Amino acid sequence: MAENNAPQPPVRFETHPSQYKHWKLSFDGPIARLAMDVQEDQGLKPGYPLKLNSYDLGVDIELSDAIQRVRFEHPEVTCVVVSSAKDRVFCSGANIYMLGMSSHAFKVNFCKFTNETRLGIEEVSRESGVRFLCAINGPCAGGGYELALACDEIYLSDDGSSAVSLPEVPLLAVLPGTGGLTRLVDKRKVRRDLADVFCTLAEGIRGPRAQQYNLVDKVAPRSKFKDVVESRAKELAGSSSRNTKWQGLALAPLGAKYRDDGADYEHVSLTVDASARVAKIVVRAPKTATPDNASAIRELGNKLWALECFRELDDALLNLRFNYETVGLIVLETEGDPAMVLSSDAALDKNRDDGFVHEVLLYQRRVLKRLDLGARSLFTFVREGSCFVGTLFELSLASDRTYMRDDPDAESPPYVQLSAMNRGSFPMSNGLSRMQNRFLYDPEKAQKLSESPERFDPSAAVKAGLVTVAPDAIDWDDEVRLAIEERASLSPDALTGMEASLRFAGPETMETKIFARLSAWQNWIFTRPNATGPRGALTMYGRPERPEFDMRRT
Amino acid sequence: MAENNAPQPPVRFETHPSQYKHWKLSFDGPIARLAMDVQEDQGLKPGYPLKLNSYDLGVDIELSDAIQRVRFEHPEVTCVVVSSAKDRVFCSGANIYMLGMSSHAFKVNFCKFTNETRLGIEEVSRESGVRFLCAINGPCAGGGYELALACDEIYLSDDGSSAVSLPEVPLLAVLPGTGGLTRLVDKRKVRRDLADVFCTLAEGIRGPRAQQYNLVDKVAPRSKFKDVVESRAKELAGSSSRNTKWQGLALAPLGAKYRDDGADYEHVSLTVDASARVAKIVVRAPKTATPDNASAIRELGNKLWALECFRELDDALLNLRFNYETVGLIVLETEGDPAMVLSSDAALDKNRDDGFVHEVLLYQRRVLKRLDLGARSLFTFVREGSCFVGTLFELSLASDRTYMRDDPDAESPPYVQLSAMNRGSFPMSNGLSRMQNRFLYDPEKAQKLSESPERFDPSAAVKAGLVTVAPDAIDWDDEVRLAIEERASLSPDALTGMEASLRFAGPETMETKIFARLSAWQNWIFTRPNATGPRGALTMYGRPERPEFDMRRT
Repeated sequence: MAENNAPQPPVRFETHPSQYKHWKLSFDGPIARLAMDVQEDQGLKPGYPLKLNSYDLGVDIELSDAIQRVRFEHPEVTCVVVSSAKDRVFCSGANIYMLGMSSHAFKVNFCKFTNETRLGIEEVSRESGVRFLCAINGPCAGGGYELALACDEIYLSDDGSSAVSLPEVPLLAVLPGTGGLTRLVDKRKVRRDLADVFCTLAEGIRGPRAQQYNLVDKVAPRSKFKDVVESRAKELAGSSSRNTKWQGLALAPLGAKYRDDGADYEHVSLTVDASARVAKIVVRAPKTATPDNASAIRELGNKLWALECFRELDDALLNLRFNYETVGLIVLETEGDPAMVLSSDAALDKNRDDGFVHEVLLYQRRVLKRLDLGARSLFTFVREGSCFVGTLFELSLASDRTYMRDDPDAESPPYVQLSAMNRGSFPMSNGLSRMQNRFLYDPEKAQKLSESPERFDPSAAVKAGLVTVAPDAIDWDDEVRLAIEERASLSPDALTGMEASLRFAGPETMETKIFARLSAWQNWIFTRPNATGPRGALTMYGRPERPEFDMRRT
Repeated sequence: MAENNAPQPPVRFETHPSQYKHWKLSFDGPIARLAMDVQEDQGLKPGYPLKLNSYDLGVDIELSDAIQRVRFEHPEVTCVVVSSAKDRVFCSGANIYMLGMSSHAFKVNFCKFTNETRLGIEEVSRESGVRFLCAINGPCAGGGYELALACDEIYLSDDGSSAVSLPEVPLLAVLPGTGGLTRLVDKRKVRRDLADVFCTLAEGIRGPRAQQYNLVDKVAPRSKFKDVVESRAKELAGSSSRNTKWQGLALAPLGAKYRDDGADYEHVSLTVDASARVAKIVVRAPKTATPDNASAIRELGNKLWALECFRELDDALLNLRFNYETVGLIVLETEGDPAMVLSSDAALDKNRDDGFVHEVLLYQRRVLKRLDLGARSLFTFVREGSCFVGTLFELSLASDRTYMRDDPDAESPPYVQLSAMNRGSFPMSNGLSRMQNRFLYDPEKAQKLSESPERFDPSAAVKAGLVTVAPDAIDWDDEVRLAIEERASLSPDALTGMEASLRFAGPETMETKIFARLSAWQNWIFTRPNATGPRGALTMYGRPERPEFDMRRT
């Protein structure tokens, strides 16, 4: 099971329920049914049959799409029942052969994407009131159980074969990579010694003991399982607080034009300079003002800038992550009329109570989190013609550094400006707004600045702490070039660890725990010979020989 | 700079100011002076001269000892001034050649110990009111600046050469391993973009800019530096809340008897079964009741069980960590009269306000944290003759599992029992008591149980959730043997990551962030070829060639 280095077609992230290969998504009034039915021979890459409802990135891309469809296209849905369409298995987790064949970078990015999807499920539950009920009919292992853990409730069929398990440690010498350990003790508050027993038991736990450990919420005999799930789904649907009083919007294809060195969208361009290992993302302001009443906003639908632009940005970020592994630095730029960005912000702010606007804002929040978590350095360049204001200033706030060009002779010198959108609409994974996170040393300053209508020119922006440095026009080219070259020369591993530590100060949440603590440990374990060496457990999986371990504990 | 695999004498952790090679500890009323003066040729192992006040584990063992001396021997001290006794350098951090020569396990354990020492400094400040002032006269790099960050205040000489820096990322392709990144943004709340600039600047930052970034608290010209530091030290000493109204106790040598396969102490025995990769630690109860008045407790001094036993336990844990790397499982047992443990608990609880008792309790807290953070699996075995009550029940609460033998025919069947000491005297790194951490799903239960004077027999203990399982006398031997064998067979890396995730549920603190997020990233980076491969930056340090990096970002 050697690493597969053959050139692969790029991974694409757009899909549609009509194209799903691995999930069946159906609707029945307030209840949506999402049934896993993985097609063995339809893996994203060749070489690993997706047996027993095991999954790869392609399966998870469809899951992620399905969640967005429920959000935008089906406001009437208040409960999603997650189950398996296979007869004798719920889900056996991420495909081991796929993991064994994948590069370290792919494994890490695969886990990150699946984590983002599951945190997205929890966000839909928390913020939009769509409740998720997982109905486990058959063995449910590893990533399968981690998907269950992301749901609000887990029901387990008591039929002698249905069981939940996290067999990663005993079978594969790796960790459950999708938040399993954290959710066990933090979300479900399973007692730590019981969690210890469970996580070292390859065969998992079934029946009443699973409920006793709080691994599942309810166990029901096979004969009654369907009815019990049905009745609970109805209860959950009825108890939802979701705003269902709006017309769903069918999400349109993005119409991206992919190039070898990037992609072009309506409002976003991505350009990769492979030799410099730098990508540039340009985000453009809306061309027109945004109407400030809900019905006009709803009429814009897919053409609403806040939605379309952020769907494009999300696609660009994922494209970068998976298809341009050596890019170490993303330069963020904006173009257009700042007033148009502020108009969009004002319109959304005014109509927060509208169900559609609510979902758009949550979507933007999720994309900005994807930016924070991207494991690439982020530099923002502010200059003449840019529009780093309001929502787009969040791009700068997400950056590791912001350079603002100080050119008093410019026809229209750049400025940065805050809006209502910088006051907590887009919390980071740690629960803080990016302004709070930046000004942790002075929370009042964060508050005051974010309420100010002031336009900050370069020197005012430096003084206020809103940008890092404002080189003058003479120094700009050299300073920016040197900063890019220097960044690109540093060890990508060290930068990833450094940025993960510096970006998220202050409080921790389950989300930051998953991305920081758990992912970091998983990264470490993935590189260790005990897992991925020639005799490591992941490498040896499926072979008759036993893996060999270096037993030194660290 | 190949890994040095030659057999080395075991590392020992006991020392005394009269034996210090690398620090000068002096006392001047309420002010203690701790000056770093590393002897180049006195490294713990051969092969790396400790130039420029760089340090190795031996230097840090003395620092750790010095902190304990201030706690126990010098109650009059309310401010410690940390400085360098060298002329032109403050401290250049952990010795790079030492790191390059060390095994992965040693590097990780070295960082863990230095972290524990620095967190100990912060604990003495927070809990005992001893303020730490770091006076930086000369370049202060990497671990040197991380030591400064652990102090309450940092003063920097403005002399053109004194600078603070964290050059690990740009120079060595690793992270600052001793909490530097976390303390920058969490403790000192340095703005994240400024922290980013600082952490990629190999030469660091000096003078007023260091203060402007909040990297230091004050900058003073060389001519006035000594006076400014002196005067601030006096202010800090005067503002301390430390209870200074007690007579210091000279900490006596432990008199450990080290064996090839462990060590014997007055109240603790450590026995290592190298072939099974299992260590057993037996902790014995006091032989007599503890007097319940402060002056009698003080008369016991070094012979106070709570102090002596926990000093021994600490030594045993460190001995295990550094000298028995392949031990994967520690079995914890106790012996003796539970009533004597409870008598000690009651006596300490009654005299918490006494300065000496206060320090003893803090010391026990620190040792128990060392147990939590040990990266070894912990099983507790409770059986006839054991005394897992009160303070010693914390050992069980720190364990990954507890097995309690259910033998109704035993002459005196075992029980477990709680005391005042289980109600928050010994918080974990996450700020919770071990009872709160265990019963996160039912905080009221944790509270109620810890207030109950009940003796829990095996079935009651299982029912209450205080132990994991209570096999009966017939099954005990098999069940315990199988559990040990199974644990010893699992990948040590996966277990370390799993335990780090399951042990610390709920809230996070700077301490858990350092040990979880930062250490995990550091572990990962230490294993990556970009740092430690044949052309990695750590390996190539000091050579004329540039390191070579795999530029894929993860």
